[in-house]
Amino acid sequence: MSMFIGLDFGGTNLKGALGTSTGEIITKLSKPSLADQSQKTIFNNMFLAVEELLEQAMRRSENVSAIGIGSPGSIDFKTGKLVGSTTNIKHWRDVPIKKNFEDRFNLSTWVDNDANLMALAEARKGAGQNYSNILCATLGTGIGGGIILNNLLHRGVNYSAAEIGHIIIEYNGRLCNCGNRGCLEAYAAAPGMVDRYRKKLKRTGVLYNVDELSAEFIFHKAELNEDLAKETIIETCEYLGVGFASIVNIIDPEIIIVGGGVAEAGEEFIKLIEKYVKKFVINSIAKKLKVVKAQLTMDAGITGAILLASENYLSQHEGN
Amino acid sequence: MSMFIGLDFGGTNLKGALGTSTGEIITKLSKPSLADQSQKTIFNNMFLAVEELLEQAMRRSENVSAIGIGSPGSIDFKTGKLVGSTTNIKHWRDVPIKKNFEDRFNLSTWVDNDANLMALAEARKGAGQNYSNILCATLGTGIGGGIILNNLLHRGVNYSAAEIGHIIIEYNGRLCNCGNRGCLEAYAAAPGMVDRYRKKLKRTGVLYNVDELSAEFIFHKAELNEDLAKETIIETCEYLGVGFASIVNIIDPEIIIVGGGVAEAGEEFIKLIEKYVKKFVINSIAKKLKVVKAQLTMDAGITGAILLASENYLSQHEGN
Repeated sequence: MSMFIGLDFGGTNLKGALGTSTGEIITKLSKPSLADQSQKTIFNNMFLAVEELLEQAMRRSENVSAIGIGSPGSIDFKTGKLVGSTTNIKHWRDVPIKKNFEDRFNLSTWVDNDANLMALAEARKGAGQNYSNILCATLGTGIGGGIILNNLLHRGVNYSAAEIGHIIIEYNGRLCNCGNRGCLEAYAAAPGMVDRYRKKLKRTGVLYNVDELSAEFIFHKAELNEDLAKETIIETCEYLGVGFASIVNIIDPEIIIVGGGVAEAGEEFIKLIEKYVKKFVINSIAKKLKVVKAQLTMDAGITGAILLASENYLSQHEGN
Repeated sequence: MSMFIGLDFGGTNLKGALGTSTGEIITKLSKPSLADQSQKTIFNNMFLAVEELLEQAMRRSENVSAIGIGSPGSIDFKTGKLVGSTTNIKHWRDVPIKKNFEDRFNLSTWVDNDANLMALAEARKGAGQNYSNILCATLGTGIGGGIILNNLLHRGVNYSAAEIGHIIIEYNGRLCNCGNRGCLEAYAAAPGMVDRYRKKLKRTGVLYNVDELSAEFIFHKAELNEDLAKETIIETCEYLGVGFASIVNIIDPEIIIVGGGVAEAGEEFIKLIEKYVKKFVINSIAKKLKVVKAQLTMDAGITGAILLASENYLSQHEGN
């Protein structure tokens, strides 16, 4: 059987896996991504991961056909090159990722944005399996997204579609990392949540150690019935509702899949997002639209990377 | 040669045309749409228009192959039925438009949302001819839109995509006709412009006859260098910039085409919108993105309706 290697390169971790053409993971690994180091070091680290996985395949007498890689940033899908830079990774700018891997391993390699690969994974093997038109959102320190239309990733002409963290939900509002004001990410990503919570605490004179504050902390306090934490979460869901409704009014998908660290808060959080999305979206869409939690969580990135490799490899070898 | 009939049904006028498969108009007509009357009266009025155009075809010894119709509202493209209602047309609710026409004329009929047809017309014969991925916006008493992806209309699973007037640009902002708060339409459509201008005037004590106020009036005053009018227009472009940037961050098109009555204000207005869109959109998109004025203006609706008929008829008869 033909196998595929998937890598998920992030600001903290590099994950890798060996898997089947349908995205079943056979074996996986995880290690620091060394994202603060030089491009050369980052690549050597990734190459080592691929070598490990190739060895795993050999031990199983399996053949590896192609490599798929997920990275933050806008990836030119045709050339497999990172276009411009990413927010948090210093030396990760205009990097010919596909070329470097194909030169090294003599295996066809495809590269895509990490949030796109999460969307692909959820569409094929997760919460989106029965849907063809999907908005997938990842909530964490930022807000990323991927859009599936007619079963295919919608990448956009600049490979910059689905930048859902940077739709503007409040004209002249909070300053965002991107330099604009009022972006969804500035309100509803983890740092925005923490910031709003801190301000509420300050007003009432309650002060926690600032280092303690995190999205997890807020969800924990809300479970303990703390009003300010509950208020912060409700507001977050309302902001997400406004932002997602705007996106849905544009693309009119069947389902919104919410993943990422913050989504781990649980089912009630997702239900509250759904309530607000339905409040703000136009009527003809509200009836059928569903909001659900992502299913693949930790493995979404590597599953998506394996699927990216297998789907492109197979379509190429079917002579398309 | 095979000809096609296109109808553009609006709140005020019914326009119709006989045209070629590539959307060239041979002859056209326009009359009141009788939109405030019963469904039966509206349909009889439309049927009369089709009969007139069929007669025109006969006189030219041309054969008519199919009918295309544009209407406000969400149109189920498969059944050709208006789903739900439209804002301004009382009895226009859950109407089986396609069926009524096919029963009457024994000609294949396709029906689509009017803003979609404007986008189709601009894509094939207007400002979008050299582009495959287009956001088309119509600015008038409301803000409508159509989206072309990979040369095809993106209709959405509920046929409700591209509701660009109802993306939310200000959380908890101005009340919109749709019942929500902060929609783009509430700020940047003609009534929103007039309302903001009126408030500015009130503050300074200048009062015009309220009936005089219109978007045209504001553009006229701005030409005469009136500060409040100029301010109102700049604000409008900034609101449109915020709204369009959010949409562009989601679908990443090549070009934004701006049409509708308000867009007739001219080239400077369009350039100012472009300036603000580029300010608010993410960097990787800003470089290549263009904002241009629609080219077909008055004939966009009927041209789109003819193209809808011809493209669907021809693809059906090519055996697809």
